[in-house]
Amino acid sequence: MIHLNFDKMGGLVPAIVQEYESGDVLMLAFMNPDAWEATLNTGEATYYSRARKTLWVKGKTSGNIQIVKEIWVDCDDDTVLLKIEQVGGAACHTGYKSCFFKKVEEGSVKVVGKPIFDPEEVYRK
Amino acid sequence: MIHLNFDKMGGLVPAIVQEYESGDVLMLAFMNPDAWEATLNTGEATYYSRARKTLWVKGKTSGNIQIVKEIWVDCDDDTVLLKIEQVGGAACHTGYKSCFFKKVEEGSVKVVGKPIFDPEEVYRK
Repeated sequence: MIHLNFDKMGGLVPAIVQEYESGDVLMLAFMNPDAWEATLNTGEATYYSRARKTLWVKGKTSGNIQIVKEIWVDCDDDTVLLKIEQVGGAACHTGYKSCFFKKVEEGSVKVVGKPIFDPEEVYRK
Repeated sequence: MIHLNFDKMGGLVPAIVQEYESGDVLMLAFMNPDAWEATLNTGEATYYSRARKTLWVKGKTSGNIQIVKEIWVDCDDDTVLLKIEQVGGAACHTGYKSCFFKKVEEGSVKVVGKPIFDPEEVYRK
């Protein structure tokens, strides 16, 4: 397996998730070695949920999986960048395309754009 | 000051750094509350160096500062996205434009592109 340095963050590396086609940054997640291996082997973005302390195949619940198009590793092997295709068009559990939907403007935070899906609808099943 | 949740990572939040004009992801860094406040107040990207345990005005040594064009906060306020203009054209201390210059291809890692500056030249002073 391709070496990453998981030591700096107690067994995890941050994964920046960018939409392949638009270049939009969609979210940040974390991987443990199992998540990293699963992502490499399956081509579907797999993370480690710090809240649930478990492997997390992104989109398993909502159907909005992330198909990995490219993987990049940073200079000191402690961060990865995934370029992905986002099934369903939204990466954020709130229904927005990107988790970064709040923009800092003049000392406060302003929500930009509208949700693509209704989370109550998607996660109710 | 705009609220961020620094608790999930022991006093830090990750900051994704993206080039404003191209959309290229350049690096990942970390901020403590002082770094966040300095970035907001000065408009120059300021991080917290985990290795040196100190505030780090990016580019202070090399002159390659990052001028902040936009700041975005994620859904749960624990990660920020900076869209910046990179003075000197290279964000990585190795001289590459982006820290993500190693691409995963067929089970191994391949260096893509060439350094913009020679680190020995820049950091010798």
